[in-house]
Amino acid sequence: MSLTDPDRLFPIDDALRGLSRAIYDTIKDLPILSPHGHCDPQWFAKNERFPNPAELFVIPDHYVFRMLVSQGVPMDDLGIPRIDGGAVEQDPRKIWHLFAKHFNLFRGTPSGLWLNHSFEHVFGFLEPLTPDNADEYYDHIDQTLAMDQFRPRAMFDRFKIDCLATTEGALDNLQWHKMIHDSDWQGRVITTYRSDAVVDPEFEGFVQNIAQFGELTGEDIASYDGYLNAHRARRAFFRSHGATATDHGHPTARTEDLPHTEAAALYAKAISGQITASEADAFRGQMLTEMARMSVEDGMTMQIHAGSTRNHSAQVFASHGRDKGFDIPRRTDFVDALKPMLDAVGMERDLNILLFTLDETTYGRELAPLAGAYPALKLGPAWWFFDSPEGMRRFRQLTTETCGFYNTAGFNDDTRAFCSIPARHDVARRTDAAYLSELVATGRLEENDAFEVAQSLTTDLVKSAYKL
Amino acid sequence: MSLTDPDRLFPIDDALRGLSRAIYDTIKDLPILSPHGHCDPQWFAKNERFPNPAELFVIPDHYVFRMLVSQGVPMDDLGIPRIDGGAVEQDPRKIWHLFAKHFNLFRGTPSGLWLNHSFEHVFGFLEPLTPDNADEYYDHIDQTLAMDQFRPRAMFDRFKIDCLATTEGALDNLQWHKMIHDSDWQGRVITTYRSDAVVDPEFEGFVQNIAQFGELTGEDIASYDGYLNAHRARRAFFRSHGATATDHGHPTARTEDLPHTEAAALYAKAISGQITASEADAFRGQMLTEMARMSVEDGMTMQIHAGSTRNHSAQVFASHGRDKGFDIPRRTDFVDALKPMLDAVGMERDLNILLFTLDETTYGRELAPLAGAYPALKLGPAWWFFDSPEGMRRFRQLTTETCGFYNTAGFNDDTRAFCSIPARHDVARRTDAAYLSELVATGRLEENDAFEVAQSLTTDLVKSAYKL
Amino acid sequence: MSLTDPDRLFPIDDALRGLSRAIYDTIKDLPILSPHGHCDPQWFAKNERFPNPAELFVIPDHYVFRMLVSQGVPMDDLGIPRIDGGAVEQDPRKIWHLFAKHFNLFRGTPSGLWLNHSFEHVFGFLEPLTPDNADEYYDHIDQTLAMDQFRPRAMFDRFKIDCLATTEGALDNLQWHKMIHDSDWQGRVITTYRSDAVVDPEFEGFVQNIAQFGELTGEDIASYDGYLNAHRARRAFFRSHGATATDHGHPTARTEDLPHTEAAALYAKAISGQITASEADAFRGQMLTEMARMSVEDGMTMQIHAGSTRNHSAQVFASHGRDKGFDIPRRTDFVDALKPMLDAVGMERDLNILLFTLDETTYGRELAPLAGAYPALKLGPAWWFFDSPEGMRRFRQLTTETCGFYNTAGFNDDTRAFCSIPARHDVARRTDAAYLSELVATGRLEENDAFEVAQSLTTDLVKSAYKL
Repeated sequence: MSLTDPDRLFPIDDALRGLSRAIYDTIKDLPILSPHGHCDPQWFAKNERFPNPAELFVIPDHYVFRMLVSQGVPMDDLGIPRIDGGAVEQDPRKIWHLFAKHFNLFRGTPSGLWLNHSFEHVFGFLEPLTPDNADEYYDHIDQTLAMDQFRPRAMFDRFKIDCLATTEGALDNLQWHKMIHDSDWQGRVITTYRSDAVVDPEFEGFVQNIAQFGELTGEDIASYDGYLNAHRARRAFFRSHGATATDHGHPTARTEDLPHTEAAALYAKAISGQITASEADAFRGQMLTEMARMSVEDGMTMQIHAGSTRNHSAQVFASHGRDKGFDIPRRTDFVDALKPMLDAVGMERDLNILLFTLDETTYGRELAPLAGAYPALKLGPAWWFFDSPEGMRRFRQLTTETCGFYNTAGFNDDTRAFCSIPARHDVARRTDAAYLSELVATGRLEENDAFEVAQSLTTDLVKSAYKL
Repeated sequence: MSLTDPDRLFPIDDALRGLSRAIYDTIKDLPILSPHGHCDPQWFAKNERFPNPAELFVIPDHYVFRMLVSQGVPMDDLGIPRIDGGAVEQDPRKIWHLFAKHFNLFRGTPSGLWLNHSFEHVFGFLEPLTPDNADEYYDHIDQTLAMDQFRPRAMFDRFKIDCLATTEGALDNLQWHKMIHDSDWQGRVITTYRSDAVVDPEFEGFVQNIAQFGELTGEDIASYDGYLNAHRARRAFFRSHGATATDHGHPTARTEDLPHTEAAALYAKAISGQITASEADAFRGQMLTEMARMSVEDGMTMQIHAGSTRNHSAQVFASHGRDKGFDIPRRTDFVDALKPMLDAVGMERDLNILLFTLDETTYGRELAPLAGAYPALKLGPAWWFFDSPEGMRRFRQLTTETCGFYNTAGFNDDTRAFCSIPARHDVARRTDAAYLSELVATGRLEENDAFEVAQSLTTDLVKSAYKL
Repeated sequence: MSLTDPDRLFPIDDALRGLSRAIYDTIKDLPILSPHGHCDPQWFAKNERFPNPAELFVIPDHYVFRMLVSQGVPMDDLGIPRIDGGAVEQDPRKIWHLFAKHFNLFRGTPSGLWLNHSFEHVFGFLEPLTPDNADEYYDHIDQTLAMDQFRPRAMFDRFKIDCLATTEGALDNLQWHKMIHDSDWQGRVITTYRSDAVVDPEFEGFVQNIAQFGELTGEDIASYDGYLNAHRARRAFFRSHGATATDHGHPTARTEDLPHTEAAALYAKAISGQITASEADAFRGQMLTEMARMSVEDGMTMQIHAGSTRNHSAQVFASHGRDKGFDIPRRTDFVDALKPMLDAVGMERDLNILLFTLDETTYGRELAPLAGAYPALKLGPAWWFFDSPEGMRRFRQLTTETCGFYNTAGFNDDTRAFCSIPARHDVARRTDAAYLSELVATGRLEENDAFEVAQSLTTDLVKSAYKL
């Protein structure tokens, strides 16, 4: 018995499965490049043990707990911290039991695949989690986490992670990255410049954030030029802590390339706290173009993660705050939205702008045609809800014919669930191997080219997209 | 020779086909739960014979006759009744011949599958319908329909229908349901509360409908509160005739949660006949939230069928009226549209709101993420144009990874074509068995779990979604 | 060794592959009907040799060169002519080397399939193009092109083209078509009436175009009625050069059916050069309905190619002009957009309006339901970015269940890359054969019907849709 099928995600036909496996075998043990994600750098700085199974698998992972919530399990019973001071379950074992009781909800989901992968390959379980063996699972995981070789740094090495990028806000002091760098541990953990809190006038605390931004950089943030220089300064600071990329999580992909005086006027309104919703949207759009220009200057890769309606439930946002599983994708336009930025910098050959979408209809209609024309554009991998076997398959089927493989950027796990990292990369490698084998078997790709492409998707394209 | 392949809709690979068949074998004979549809309750109340083959298969089924119309066959020649008094073909045999002559149009369509299934499994035909055997078909069907064991109630039992929900307007007196209930026949035929005619200010005759609504309930429909109470009264009346659900066929999924005075003001405009199109839209949206609140009160499951542009052809609507095959899906937003209602009741654990869409782009982007978070939401099955093998397959592929199986509601046939009911449920069971077998064969689902899920999709989830 | 797998694009399962091949074998050698495309009629009029490999395969084909541009190859280095007078590479051998160096970019793309098909089946290559054999390739193609039997007319015959439609603007004098017709060569090359330059007020030079339109026809183009008559005259002129169809490349599918005075007023603004963007859009919409009415009069098939954002890059448009690979699809609505035209002519039984989309989300949601109801509508094949194995497959999977096969119009290659014509038709035939075989193997289509449908898709439906 086993929790993971050795041939999982491969095609069913024998010959095809054999070719998929052969391709996969050449990439399965390659080191992991994780150029975008949300792991906590503190884990690797302090290297303390992970506290308990519930805190490792349930509480921090909105992929997991929202599924239980959707079936009527109260968030409070799952120990999800409230921001309104209300009490939540504190006993991790009780939370774990609730999780085990509802584990059937993950049938057919990528979370199910990732969890079982971790249970088997990190913790050695061979029987599925059930209410009956929940305590056995809990105790064994907890004991394992107590071992030094399962502390964060050891786990990082065990997972063969070559490079892991975390994501920090523009105001972050990057102390944990410094601590990691100053330590005797050799693991490569780098940061990413995420500027939303000082770019989006509708972000909580924007005005105060800008004030702090000025203090940190010594720039005159009363002026637009000073504000842009503050970004330049912080980008340089982030680069000095390993960052090779920036990240922009905007509700839409809108860009603008306004005359300087108009942009400055919008900025003045923004920092006065007197900006309308539509002006705020324009300002965010302007800042994408400014960030792209700075990327031309400093060589940082620019990631645009567009199209999430954050905090859809007013009730959950009020009680539990951000990132609680109630972020819902929305229809996203890229064609008109990106034009101002692309007219400014789209033909730049040394610029990498990576596009991510939650609207799969844009893969074939907008993103692949854009990336298949503009030198500055590449496509990030299938994201979030679509970081899944079917999602990755649709991504390849809908983009390859128009923009090929070489305008894509390999895989990102984009996760805060550390143990899921090897599982997610494994899903991507298997799914790519399966896709490539089908192209070969249907006469659309030479067999030896398939092996070469598999290497590129796993390693080379990630390195070039992120300049690692 | 046979009209139906015993392995139809199963995967082609032998091993996979074997597993699909094994799963299917455990569900194929389960009784049919048909919790949403448009059969005529009069059939079961009066139990008169179905008049003739054309009236059974062609004239009432817009899936069928629109296909012939699309290829230039005049509606009048098919006997489709006009509302403008024009003459139409009266000879059912002539209509049948026209149908037979164009039967090739159904190649590759679900209508073709359903018709052949009925021809073989209800009427015993083994050779395809052609112009040459059209009379033979006609005569045999006609003679069969004359037998008592092919009257509606006998057919209901023959089809192993456990429960069939029809759909009646809020003003209906439910006489046929009463007659069924008072009869000595044990078949479970229940009604569903469809309120569009008294909720949509743009519905034909809305103002008069409201007047009648007041008379029926004795409520003061001059006031908004009285109007809401009239709904409560009719919902109770429908529940007393077996209803467990309401149904809402709106052009969009817009909801509103307006202050009482604003809602009352919109209502006042609506009943004065002086409401603008945009106000009417807001009022429909407000009523979805009101209906959801009443569902919290009375426990009725709420179905939202959004996104059909009804009566697209002005010419056909003028000559032939509603439901004549010229209802065209449109792009539908759920993310912003449902937010007011979800902020009001989305976290309710005992409420079931079932969402149906004609815009498949929303499956992965909006519906599965919403249903995978809000306890009150479940997804209805692939609907109308997508009640088909490919449609059902896309539904599972696009929703399962995000919301799993347990946030879906099993199958509905949603039909007015009685003989197609077993055929449609059979397609759903086969398609689900095929999908589940592929998950097993690709290591995404344990084999014994697949059997359990198949049972849930066929029976348990339908019962819990509709509280049957 | 071979560049093309004899079983390419067929399903992998042995039995299924056998059936696909059997179906394909009955259609593979049927003559090519190419009812819509952009070949240069001058080729067949003058019958001069194709100048060199770069001018045959790279420079005119934006499918090909945009892929290299997207990876940073400058357009100028590829010899793409500039409109701003800048210098570009003139040495075709250098261009060919650049192409060979980047040939790996076409892995997994339809361009790769077409190029390899041409290389093998037209020029006899069996080894893939690489930088190492680039000269060998160049020399052999160049020498081959020098042979009489590889001149355009001979190639046309070699490709077994039965009929090829080119596309000319309304102002074209059709001299090349006349020359072809007057020659002793029997090849059937016909024209198509493309009216955009005299229909779209935002087209470059619109006002002058209209003046010329008046001169050519002798109609009083100062009046709207005269303008419409000028269209009638030119349509007749085009018909006298073989045209059976018109073509309309609009940014959206918007139609209007305005009162005559309003339409005339818009026209007056248009020819004064004083029309707003939104009025121009309305005028284009009005003209689609006018063109549809003229098609009812004169029997010409009407093609609507909607949804391309032309010339997305301002920089490339300024330097290199139109059709340079920077046309990006956009979201397209058909439901509301087509209603005015369909209310006017949608129920006409002898009218053929063929719809093409770059927004695949409309296949199942809008186009198949519309074509499955209105007699005047048929669906053109998967277009442009979707003229590909996956694109064609999705087209069938998303349309067949709703509108069947007989509301579709067979294949068009829509190309200006002459050598790709046999390759493209071959991809379509194989993909259809594969799709049909899967329907048979899953019990959705009788085997003998599949052979009949294959014939229809290859020949009959093209002939009836285009009245060839």
